[in-house]
Amino acid sequence: MDHRLLTQHCSREVRIGREVFGGGEVGWIAGPCAVESYEQMREAAEELLACGVAVMRGGLYKPRTSPHSFQGLQAAGLDIIRRIKAEFDLAYVSEVVDRASLELLLPYLDAVQVGSRNCMNYALLKMVGQTGKPVILKRGFAMTVDEWLYAAEYLAQAGARDIVLCERGIRTVTEVTRFTLDLGALAWLKTQDLLPVIADPSHATGDNSLVMPLARAALAAGADGLLLEVTPCPNRALCDARQQLSFAQLRALRKN
Amino acid sequence: MDHRLLTQHCSREVRIGREVFGGGEVGWIAGPCAVESYEQMREAAEELLACGVAVMRGGLYKPRTSPHSFQGLQAAGLDIIRRIKAEFDLAYVSEVVDRASLELLLPYLDAVQVGSRNCMNYALLKMVGQTGKPVILKRGFAMTVDEWLYAAEYLAQAGARDIVLCERGIRTVTEVTRFTLDLGALAWLKTQDLLPVIADPSHATGDNSLVMPLARAALAAGADGLLLEVTPCPNRALCDARQQLSFAQLRALRKN
Amino acid sequence: MDHRLLTQHCSREVRIGREVFGGGEVGWIAGPCAVESYEQMREAAEELLACGVAVMRGGLYKPRTSPHSFQGLQAAGLDIIRRIKAEFDLAYVSEVVDRASLELLLPYLDAVQVGSRNCMNYALLKMVGQTGKPVILKRGFAMTVDEWLYAAEYLAQAGARDIVLCERGIRTVTEVTRFTLDLGALAWLKTQDLLPVIADPSHATGDNSLVMPLARAALAAGADGLLLEVTPCPNRALCDARQQLSFAQLRALRKN
Amino acid sequence: MDHRLLTQHCSREVRIGREVFGGGEVGWIAGPCAVESYEQMREAAEELLACGVAVMRGGLYKPRTSPHSFQGLQAAGLDIIRRIKAEFDLAYVSEVVDRASLELLLPYLDAVQVGSRNCMNYALLKMVGQTGKPVILKRGFAMTVDEWLYAAEYLAQAGARDIVLCERGIRTVTEVTRFTLDLGALAWLKTQDLLPVIADPSHATGDNSLVMPLARAALAAGADGLLLEVTPCPNRALCDARQQLSFAQLRALRKN
Repeated sequence: MDHRLLTQHCSREVRIGREVFGGGEVGWIAGPCAVESYEQMREAAEELLACGVAVMRGGLYKPRTSPHSFQGLQAAGLDIIRRIKAEFDLAYVSEVVDRASLELLLPYLDAVQVGSRNCMNYALLKMVGQTGKPVILKRGFAMTVDEWLYAAEYLAQAGARDIVLCERGIRTVTEVTRFTLDLGALAWLKTQDLLPVIADPSHATGDNSLVMPLARAALAAGADGLLLEVTPCPNRALCDARQQLSFAQLRALRKN
Repeated sequence: MDHRLLTQHCSREVRIGREVFGGGEVGWIAGPCAVESYEQMREAAEELLACGVAVMRGGLYKPRTSPHSFQGLQAAGLDIIRRIKAEFDLAYVSEVVDRASLELLLPYLDAVQVGSRNCMNYALLKMVGQTGKPVILKRGFAMTVDEWLYAAEYLAQAGARDIVLCERGIRTVTEVTRFTLDLGALAWLKTQDLLPVIADPSHATGDNSLVMPLARAALAAGADGLLLEVTPCPNRALCDARQQLSFAQLRALRKN
Repeated sequence: MDHRLLTQHCSREVRIGREVFGGGEVGWIAGPCAVESYEQMREAAEELLACGVAVMRGGLYKPRTSPHSFQGLQAAGLDIIRRIKAEFDLAYVSEVVDRASLELLLPYLDAVQVGSRNCMNYALLKMVGQTGKPVILKRGFAMTVDEWLYAAEYLAQAGARDIVLCERGIRTVTEVTRFTLDLGALAWLKTQDLLPVIADPSHATGDNSLVMPLARAALAAGADGLLLEVTPCPNRALCDARQQLSFAQLRALRKN
Repeated sequence: MDHRLLTQHCSREVRIGREVFGGGEVGWIAGPCAVESYEQMREAAEELLACGVAVMRGGLYKPRTSPHSFQGLQAAGLDIIRRIKAEFDLAYVSEVVDRASLELLLPYLDAVQVGSRNCMNYALLKMVGQTGKPVILKRGFAMTVDEWLYAAEYLAQAGARDIVLCERGIRTVTEVTRFTLDLGALAWLKTQDLLPVIADPSHATGDNSLVMPLARAALAAGADGLLLEVTPCPNRALCDARQQLSFAQLRALRKN
């Protein structure tokens, strides 16, 4: 393992908007899986501020297993984000999948998310690193921890200084959840004190009744933050409906 | 899935000594990986009582990957257990591996443990179920949750009524821990309300610096109890030395 | 790795009846998944001899995931085996699961099979090793190659000299077969020249249209033999019906 | 599963140069892991033609786990490929990782390779599909067969008609090879008759003593072709030295 750039140049504490990840602080990122409409995002934004969460998520570019599934609003949704950012005091994080999506989203992004499917897309990592923005780097479906740190090293080599790792579950034999949230890897990374590490229990489980206990477990294991799918109307969502929390659930989680 | 016997006959709340697993209670089982000497077990017993833990573990029959590794004191250690049970008000749980070990240990056992290597050894499950004693059933290295419940169904078919499932980590791509503690499976099992489920973060991680955060995570995820390796002298242990907690660590964990 | 007993004491070439496994020879074991009736086994025996296969399989003790599934004829089927052995010049291999099944089957067994679910049941390995009979040792669902060799080392420690490893597929992400036949592990074992290694493409795939290509692949990869499920009436089998070959398919495979 | 575009529009038989993949034909692609010099590639080209292999491989863009490892000659190596293509009657296949590498390589490519790390990089799949060139699509480290076919569906949606799937091993518990070559998935894909499927035993094993038996196994399992790393001087290679075959080994394999 040669993670020299992470060791030498990267922050142990990353700020995105008013949320702090690492250094003893727990940061929160929450919002809908996919941006669907201005009304949906406005309602989500109001709820997030009421809950005290300062970073909003909401995908415009959704890498889906099938090309025949909904792929996100893409460029057509940028105006929604522009309006929400103008009206609410919220930072915004969203996934990018190529140069075009990065360039279009960049003016609105407070942090850039690289998803599990692209975590070894080194060309994308270089582009994202060059922006100098904070990065949320999700772990791949079958990535070792060493490979994950090397992916972060690609970001650092390109110029990223504020990298937050996001454990979102790996593929295992378990059939009752979509993925297995690997809190052992998260706890091990915390002992290394290289980069902040957060957890995404929404994608790990795929079921909102399991998101709550795993979110609490991640915090108990020392996670520097959570990335959560929360939506005003879980039942009507176009994408990953079953795994999104309600805002009532988010409030309950925040009270812990 | 046809887990009819678990549904109809098994307890949602299991008592072993003074510890209760399930029904909102959290039970604790702790002690050395392997029984090594009377002095070691006496010191462990004193410490456990001082910590308020009422069930002691300590293996006499250790299934080891290599036949050339220490296999436990076996029958030669029974007298140690007999003395400890006579002197201390502690329940005792230990792993059995065949009819001989079951028969020798049975008089001293308050619960019978079936280990990961034998979780599909249905002949052993039948023998153990026939004793009518509470059973701690560990999950296999690559067992689905359905297979695990069917293993419990074998126990129930033979007569067991008090079965506690123990999540102890599964094999995954992760290289920084020995196994990956699957708290998603544990949380899912809790939603089914079939059997109590506890966690063994000691075997899952293989490293005592990771046992603490994963123990906390398991409780936060809703575990009905913990099974922990704790030893008076972690550095001198004959087996799995690196993963055993000190009693100071156990006390810290109990205070949470 | 310390596989000293395999290195020092075990045969690179194992004979079971007239079949030879290792030393450049390819041995064949074939027959029904489970013994169901005298007529079924007689027809299978006639077909096997006509095909030139000298070792018959057919399970009496079937370790099944659910206790509610057919578990094999068990002791009630011994007389069928006794008659078939008296009438046909065939060796017989069958799985044992505990002391009772081993003792009952032993008079009829030319080799003892230890199945995947019991490959880390070291108590059983010791009993089987003590018989001195040839052993077919299947690999576990998630067993490393090192663990598999150590399981063989347990057999050798107890007295076994003729051990044949059987690769039968491991658990992976692949969803179109039941398991993934690991011919890389088989090829690697051949480079070590410790023990003969055969393949079981029937359990690996669970589908008889895939058994044929994987049987050919195993031989091409250097397998010392094949273990195949073949039955007179695949459609009527009580157990694993879909994965059993017809005798016409076996004849086609033998002609390769 | 909805692989309608593969079913309706894609070829069951793909030609790259004089090699044919599918329709009963076995195609061969061979050459060095990475392009290192004109002399290396010229010697490889001469040897390939002498062996009768008509498609050459040789990477200019090497996605490596560590950013500190050799990343391929990249644009600096294009002139080598230009000269080799001018001097030898060989088709050329190479991996692309982004728009820049695709645009630079395209004039020289007879087929475009998408590697395992980018198999879910849908933006890249779209770009590659739009070229209309034949595509070699490697399977990801932990990709289900369904996900793999959907990745091909992305290619088809963008315009690709000639897609060859390449099984190159998946991550499993096995520790003696780098990956586990999944010939069961290959055999299953052959039963579906959707797209040609070839095997890459070089990356699957990481060891040239294992490449030979697995190459033979892949052909026996019905592979429509092989992708092999072969180099004039395996010991001196800058990348994956240990897994590359010598041309003597390639000749031996071709004679089978």
